Amino acid sequence: MSQKHFNLVKTCVGARAGELNTSHGKVLTPLFMPVGSQATVKTLTPEDVKGLGFSMLLANTYHLYLRPGIDVIKKLGGLHKFMAWDGAILTDSGGYQVFSLSPLCKITDEGVKFRSHIDGSEHFLTPELAIKYQEALGSDVIMVLDECSAYGDDAGKIKKAMDRTHRWAERCLKAHKKKGQALYAIVQGGMFPDLRKASAKYLTELDFPGYAVGGLSVGEPKEVTLPIIEQTTALLPSDKPRYLMGVGSPEDLVEGVARGVDMFDCALPTRVARNGALFTRQGRVNIRRAIYAKMDKPVDPSCDCYTCRTFSAAYLSHLFRAEELLALRLATIHNLRFINNLMRDIRNAILDGKYDAFARKFLSEYQTTNEQTRVEQKGKWLKGRK
Amino acid sequence: MSQKHFNLVKTCVGARAGELNTSHGKVLTPLFMPVGSQATVKTLTPEDVKGLGFSMLLANTYHLYLRPGIDVIKKLGGLHKFMAWDGAILTDSGGYQVFSLSPLCKITDEGVKFRSHIDGSEHFLTPELAIKYQEALGSDVIMVLDECSAYGDDAGKIKKAMDRTHRWAERCLKAHKKKGQALYAIVQGGMFPDLRKASAKYLTELDFPGYAVGGLSVGEPKEVTLPIIEQTTALLPSDKPRYLMGVGSPEDLVEGVARGVDMFDCALPTRVARNGALFTRQGRVNIRRAIYAKMDKPVDPSCDCYTCRTFSAAYLSHLFRAEELLALRLATIHNLRFINNLMRDIRNAILDGKYDAFARKFLSEYQTTNEQTRVEQKGKWLKGRK
Repeated sequence: MSQKHFNLVKTCVGARAGELNTSHGKVLTPLFMPVGSQATVKTLTPEDVKGLGFSMLLANTYHLYLRPGIDVIKKLGGLHKFMAWDGAILTDSGGYQVFSLSPLCKITDEGVKFRSHIDGSEHFLTPELAIKYQEALGSDVIMVLDECSAYGDDAGKIKKAMDRTHRWAERCLKAHKKKGQALYAIVQGGMFPDLRKASAKYLTELDFPGYAVGGLSVGEPKEVTLPIIEQTTALLPSDKPRYLMGVGSPEDLVEGVARGVDMFDCALPTRVARNGALFTRQGRVNIRRAIYAKMDKPVDPSCDCYTCRTFSAAYLSHLFRAEELLALRLATIHNLRFINNLMRDIRNAILDGKYDAFARKFLSEYQTTNEQTRVEQKGKWLKGRK
Repeated sequence: MSQKHFNLVKTCVGARAGELNTSHGKVLTPLFMPVGSQATVKTLTPEDVKGLGFSMLLANTYHLYLRPGIDVIKKLGGLHKFMAWDGAILTDSGGYQVFSLSPLCKITDEGVKFRSHIDGSEHFLTPELAIKYQEALGSDVIMVLDECSAYGDDAGKIKKAMDRTHRWAERCLKAHKKKGQALYAIVQGGMFPDLRKASAKYLTELDFPGYAVGGLSVGEPKEVTLPIIEQTTALLPSDKPRYLMGVGSPEDLVEGVARGVDMFDCALPTRVARNGALFTRQGRVNIRRAIYAKMDKPVDPSCDCYTCRTFSAAYLSHLFRAEELLALRLATIHNLRFINNLMRDIRNAILDGKYDAFARKFLSEYQTTNEQTRVEQKGKWLKGRK
């Protein structure tokens, strides 16, 4: 790439504001990418996503490989054209999905054999194929194939997976030829600081344009996650972007940025929206609760999203109770706009040199309660959806 | 109402072009109203509906009475404000839903006792209450409470229901006080020409601002429906709008207009859209069929809707196969835009004095096949939805 992939603009304690240069425009960091695994951010058109302020989203090689197939998308002009999105796209290699969704998954040094969660058909994915598929999709940032460990695996098992991840990262680097596409490595090593250190060292020596912190949010408690993030980002070069995969609740975004993370993706904001859980600066609220049934004000009177500008909480509550499809879109719009505005505020606080105060204030006001877990598990009429 | 509710602009053989004057603007006829029974046209925002070209929609008193409750909507400023729709609204009285959805339904001269299809609770609806509720909703056109007969009922039973409908119509007329709201009567009489004649005579003498043709599309074959429509509209005053309830497939719209109908509503275009059946001038196509899986062109290259302007048939097909929620919205947008454009073309053909040629050409090109029935019954992942 002629331009530098990443420019660090400002650092404020550990938090960083920067810019990613991609083949589909400049993207400001810290960055949240809405999840569009199957080439669609659930319930939204690309116009909607752009209108909410996002300039980069995430799609998934595993999902797109199985359906509609990489060849179909390639034939139709690549992923951007296929889904009519002219912003930037990051594709995950599909490694995580192979490990988490496939009913069978057999790993050798050569690659990973897995079964489709859709029809049970057998497939084989190698580092070289992961690159080939992502080159065909034409995404702006692509990821190496890595071996994911489970929380609770012992150090020997974690190390073995990490070593294989390193060998695979080298093969990915060697296989990757497409210009205008940045290939990121994924630091593994589980919850073991020594392994994280070894992984960061190995991968940074290979000089990738970006680094992801992998193997987190796999069931470990948050007291374990945050120090690992902090330790890992400290081991990464400051002139390369750091991407924390699969993290994106409001509180985790604020905490992650404080620990030097530049990029995030997460299905949580859109998934909980479909369950009726809406973000406010005071925490998540469950729109199905009785207090909203007659409320004339928007869910969040301070919010500038289409949903809050247009409808009362009572109307949104009605749509959820009546199981109307519009409910899902309106709630998604609200939650993503909340996240977009939060990322904007985060960046401005860093640029103003006031991130620490911003984060403290946000985290003191934003309540996380047990209710959230209940809300997340509800989603009655969409049960079983991915 | 200070202005005349309906102006007949032009007649072409039996087809009529006109204008409805409502408290929420002028509406051109022939008119199709998208169905928003629960105060939402399924999957669409009011902005979407307006953008598709519609200026009037239908909502349902039965549904809104049960959920969220008439009082809630009234307290929130009426139905227009509640659903953020500044166009015109017609509400059905709920009579048809009481008869078709309630697990129990007991009719006396006083009114109808029914059970909620949601929670089984017992309710009582009278002509006076139907008016009171619709006044509270604040819709622009409201309907009398009528007694609906089933196809196959004998003449005696049909006549009894018709006579009660007439008495109820008079009570509705007497109860209705709200200005700026037009109350339509509903002509009954089943498939019996003599009864239709008696019903039209009785109701036109009461001088309502509009008349619906009720009791059709209740299971009778189309060869029976069309002559009854033609015969009934001929009995109605030419300076009042005629509304054919629950009819709205493309071919039925063309046939209905030819028989002097001015207004239609129907859930079919939006319902079949959610099942993956898309309208084209050649007939409905099932987007899930294999031929669309790799098709680079839009479903209907001649269509100007957002879906066809933006996405390939392959992408839409992918969304349906992947059971993505965006599929439902994109298909709904297409089908409603198709209907909107059809109504525009119909009106222009009438104004040009060429409706007969237009209708013949449309009906000769638009194929109806057995496949349609299959498509309609599919809707796998929305089964059971209303």
